[in-house]
Amino acid sequence: MAKKLEDIVSLCKRRGFIFPGSDVYGGFAGTWDFGPLGVSLKKKIMDEWWKFWVEDRDDIFGIDAAILMNPKTWVASGHTKTFADPLVECGACHGRFRADKIADGITESVTTEEFHALNVKCPTCGKTEWGPIRKFNMMFETHVGAVLPEDVNGDENARALAEKSIAYLRPETAQGIFTNYKNVVDTSYPDMPFGLAQQGKAFRNEISPRDFVLRDRECSQMEIEYFIHPDTWEEQFNKLLKENHYFLENVMGLKAENIHDLEVPEEDRAFYSKRTIDLMFDYPNGEEELMGLAYRTNYDLSNIARESGKSMDYRDKNTGETYIPHVIEPSIGVERLILAVLSTAYTEEEKDGKTRVLLKLPENLAPYRFCVSPLLKNKPELVEKAHEVYNLLRKKYGNVTWDDSGNIGKRYMKQDEIGTPKCVVVDFDTLEDNTVTVRDRDTTEQVRVKIEEL
Amino acid sequence: MAKKLEDIVSLCKRRGFIFPGSDVYGGFAGTWDFGPLGVSLKKKIMDEWWKFWVEDRDDIFGIDAAILMNPKTWVASGHTKTFADPLVECGACHGRFRADKIADGITESVTTEEFHALNVKCPTCGKTEWGPIRKFNMMFETHVGAVLPEDVNGDENARALAEKSIAYLRPETAQGIFTNYKNVVDTSYPDMPFGLAQQGKAFRNEISPRDFVLRDRECSQMEIEYFIHPDTWEEQFNKLLKENHYFLENVMGLKAENIHDLEVPEEDRAFYSKRTIDLMFDYPNGEEELMGLAYRTNYDLSNIARESGKSMDYRDKNTGETYIPHVIEPSIGVERLILAVLSTAYTEEEKDGKTRVLLKLPENLAPYRFCVSPLLKNKPELVEKAHEVYNLLRKKYGNVTWDDSGNIGKRYMKQDEIGTPKCVVVDFDTLEDNTVTVRDRDTTEQVRVKIEEL
Repeated sequence: MAKKLEDIVSLCKRRGFIFPGSDVYGGFAGTWDFGPLGVSLKKKIMDEWWKFWVEDRDDIFGIDAAILMNPKTWVASGHTKTFADPLVECGACHGRFRADKIADGITESVTTEEFHALNVKCPTCGKTEWGPIRKFNMMFETHVGAVLPEDVNGDENARALAEKSIAYLRPETAQGIFTNYKNVVDTSYPDMPFGLAQQGKAFRNEISPRDFVLRDRECSQMEIEYFIHPDTWEEQFNKLLKENHYFLENVMGLKAENIHDLEVPEEDRAFYSKRTIDLMFDYPNGEEELMGLAYRTNYDLSNIARESGKSMDYRDKNTGETYIPHVIEPSIGVERLILAVLSTAYTEEEKDGKTRVLLKLPENLAPYRFCVSPLLKNKPELVEKAHEVYNLLRKKYGNVTWDDSGNIGKRYMKQDEIGTPKCVVVDFDTLEDNTVTVRDRDTTEQVRVKIEEL
Repeated sequence: MAKKLEDIVSLCKRRGFIFPGSDVYGGFAGTWDFGPLGVSLKKKIMDEWWKFWVEDRDDIFGIDAAILMNPKTWVASGHTKTFADPLVECGACHGRFRADKIADGITESVTTEEFHALNVKCPTCGKTEWGPIRKFNMMFETHVGAVLPEDVNGDENARALAEKSIAYLRPETAQGIFTNYKNVVDTSYPDMPFGLAQQGKAFRNEISPRDFVLRDRECSQMEIEYFIHPDTWEEQFNKLLKENHYFLENVMGLKAENIHDLEVPEEDRAFYSKRTIDLMFDYPNGEEELMGLAYRTNYDLSNIARESGKSMDYRDKNTGETYIPHVIEPSIGVERLILAVLSTAYTEEEKDGKTRVLLKLPENLAPYRFCVSPLLKNKPELVEKAHEVYNLLRKKYGNVTWDDSGNIGKRYMKQDEIGTPKCVVVDFDTLEDNTVTVRDRDTTEQVRVKIEEL
């Protein structure tokens, strides 16, 4: 795609979609705040996902687990041990970096010897005085309960209390689903296969956040754990793959040609996964993961059974067969999806020697469906009539905006940039024949329409 | 109210509304997970709030800020200094308690001498060997960036790095609004008065979480900062108070007689607040704050101006007057609101010597509006017809559930407990005359209705 990431970032800030987090204090690396239009777009995307996967289906139910979970969760899931990046520190300037991101051709499992042999220059000071590779766990750690800061460095008793109180900000929402599997089965005993879906925040302490919202420290995830009988996994995997493509293309309006199924080879998959497909998307800066579809076997539920001592068995009501369900997990990051939607919508057009910037957002995602305005602001009769039309459309469609700033050309420019599909303008003819001008965002064509036919 | 909190907690767990957080691992104090019905109720409540305050109004806009914010935020807001509880430790058993919660008639500002003079017995071991009162900050602390656990206790350089990397989980959503005020004004320059609304998680490290979701460590807040000209504060305060009562009574279905305006006296208000009203609710365990309405003057924006060095001025487009806006803040906790809704709905009725438990939830909040079921499960013609009706209602209303478990009496009992207003039953007469039995949750009355008139 010829679209530049910086242009999208700039539009997002200029029009109030997405601001750098804590912007007023000079920002806070890896965090982003959604402005009025961004929160509208984000909510529509999340609501459409919830409707598609939960409300419109009989077999998937919602869950909303706390962000702070019992630390046993992350022992069972393996995150305390393996959710780590290789960190190196420059002995000269004390800058810290992810080893596999500042050198070519090495992986996360690089050793100190391998790294030193590469003679990489420090990106900050240019020296090559590297310390050893250390494992840096990406989970944010905190202390829960009555632990004072001095306890953490204090005497032995207090230290023990502090250790006991460690908790983590969840690095994924998935475990909040797995830990509730038993509660759901015990309270509503759904037939197999069934899914549990969750939307919520997850946190990763990225060493170097970058690429706008693609590599952030705080993100919103939408995950489903779809519980199945192990014999059916191939069939269910293919079904979910198709359904996810349908959602991305038909509900989110992404283009099929920009989504590429990447069959993750065995050596790159988690050891328990028998199949994983990453759905890659053509972002402005290149191909990046948009979402993942992973067959996780019964790895997570088995770990929970072991760690909790509780049975995760499911007993089939018809056959009586008892087993720990296997699971297929579609997982998508909301911010990645928003950027995919924005990249698809962002368009620059040359017209009469000028560049027109517009967001070709699908109607179901555009923050506003209509913009209503009076041709002239200083004509009370036009303003009054325009308000009538505004209230009418608002009652009918909900998301309508009012704009009487600047001249009509500037208003169109603004509405194009925020993706409003139709601009409705009330002029002097309206007062005569009750028709309005409706201008289309994508074609810029204008037609006269009777108010009652809007 | 004669309703018992334990009965509501028990129903919530039994029917999959709210589970203790991390239940499978024996819980995690102060956290709660929402099950399939709870997440539906929670989403409806939050969506109704968003519709009422943001989507249906012209003067309030949405914001969605990150949970992790630049630590300057909490210096400016005063949270690093004053967001603290008085903590005492028992010298015998090392139990830690909030001093003002284990002794009568003292406040948060109790001194060590005052506390010792009371000779309070330790709630755990009964001794009176208390240590000094210490200030315990309720913000959860974490480290952002490439800081390893050993750094925190390591040499001077590493310690300095660790100090620099401290961040907090936001203890309120409000500051995410204030820090975005300037971005919103710069990008869309709304007319005064205008509000910014946010929904999101906030965290408080309660020393002793208790009372179900009333005193939890992780909660969802819904807050509005309504920016005004200082001269108008009394008028705007009264308007917002009325609107909040309207929302609670007419959209959330709470009873006016259970909501009491508590005028917070000057000595209990924050020093900058000229007026605060707490809306108290009659919870099963007594009166507790449901929401607050506070006139915060321009305290927060002035602090941000000082801390950031940036102007928070608003320039009136018409008069040219330039000033830092004042603010009125309606603030409500989602979980407190959910418990108010559940307490209002929870009903026990004696009938034929049996107790009937039902949730009289308003139609707009009930997880399901209809339950459809065939009278008998083993009659394919009934099941098929019932599925027809189910799909019809689903298309029309969305939130419909299917139930063919147990006998019809058990199904009614279940639907009463989860608050489904109408049960639709397909029987043999349906096959003849296309009518169904519709049973009302609140009256238990049954009427025959034509399918097309549902």
